[in-house]
Amino acid sequence: MFTLYYALNTCALASHIALKDAGAPYDLQRVDFRTTQQQSPDYVAINPKARVPAMVTPRGILTETPAILAFIAQSFPTAQLAPLDDPFAFAEMQAFNSYLCSTVHVAHAHRMRGGRWADEPASFEDMKRKVPQTVTACFELINSRMLKGPWVMGEAYTIADPYLFTIAQWLEDDGVDPSRIPRVIDHRIRMLERPSVQQAIAEERAG
Amino acid sequence: MFTLYYALNTCALASHIALKDAGAPYDLQRVDFRTTQQQSPDYVAINPKARVPAMVTPRGILTETPAILAFIAQSFPTAQLAPLDDPFAFAEMQAFNSYLCSTVHVAHAHRMRGGRWADEPASFEDMKRKVPQTVTACFELINSRMLKGPWVMGEAYTIADPYLFTIAQWLEDDGVDPSRIPRVIDHRIRMLERPSVQQAIAEERAG
Repeated sequence: MFTLYYALNTCALASHIALKDAGAPYDLQRVDFRTTQQQSPDYVAINPKARVPAMVTPRGILTETPAILAFIAQSFPTAQLAPLDDPFAFAEMQAFNSYLCSTVHVAHAHRMRGGRWADEPASFEDMKRKVPQTVTACFELINSRMLKGPWVMGEAYTIADPYLFTIAQWLEDDGVDPSRIPRVIDHRIRMLERPSVQQAIAEERAG
Repeated sequence: MFTLYYALNTCALASHIALKDAGAPYDLQRVDFRTTQQQSPDYVAINPKARVPAMVTPRGILTETPAILAFIAQSFPTAQLAPLDDPFAFAEMQAFNSYLCSTVHVAHAHRMRGGRWADEPASFEDMKRKVPQTVTACFELINSRMLKGPWVMGEAYTIADPYLFTIAQWLEDDGVDPSRIPRVIDHRIRMLERPSVQQAIAEERAG
């Protein structure tokens, strides 16, 4: 049994969908960002980074979305959520996930989380103004060069799909024009048709 | 045969050291950041992200340090550079690498690469002032909670070690007081004693 710590509208949704795709046994624990519960002593004892997701497993606690996603895929091989027997294809999938966490999510975070990297309100405003440009550039690269279609890696659905879907939830708020990235939008629609995605979203809202 | 595209003093060194640790056949191609060669049409054709590292393999081109490192470990299993048969331990290692790429490297990059996330010189100065605080916080977490010792994952050397070593090259320039993170500094010294590390550094400087 796993316990996934999540907060609403965060990248934790990717791991949640993957748990459902894998048929993994789990329960959910909601962390309330409105009350900065992620910084409470109880939560920092679980994840000293004060972020979500964190996943409690029988072996210990895991953090970082790309690591949790690959762990789910490797732990439930019959669900076929990653090319586990092909190191090159696995690396391509990991490169996609790494780009999402280190570049796309980071570009997005400059809209709301400027205080992570600067101190002055004027800097926060400057960062915020640039987010439409930087996040659009990321999604245009994904749209034109990285998303193979119909799924991220091509014909096979993988753990890269819930991660892209999750990050793509934020693109309108980041000021990205959806008409410039039609293949990403098609992917988002295709994901929304999956029961695992619908159920994960409903459970998080109810949780 | 692999071809690793690198630039001096960048995170590409981690993949370079891992190639040596694996005994992999490779050659090096230097990308000159002083002349912004990473943005040249020839290089963007290899890596449309205009970053290093990029590694050409017989199957195609890989980018993103955590993905390249895991690929090297999986492609050369006899070198024992990752816990390949233990999904939980593999995930812990990947979580470490993911933290380096998405948090530590990003915190560091705000010292020199403010233009990625803002436009005003005053914002760049604000970001630069905060780097000692943010990078110190990252390394203190690594020092106290993440680095098991003697290697990142404990007794076994893995691909997380060259990655930590590489990022730790920059900490003095980022304004981190080394005396606050003695276990990270010990790790850096231990790494420098390895012939693979010495050779990779020498080759990059000569290249």
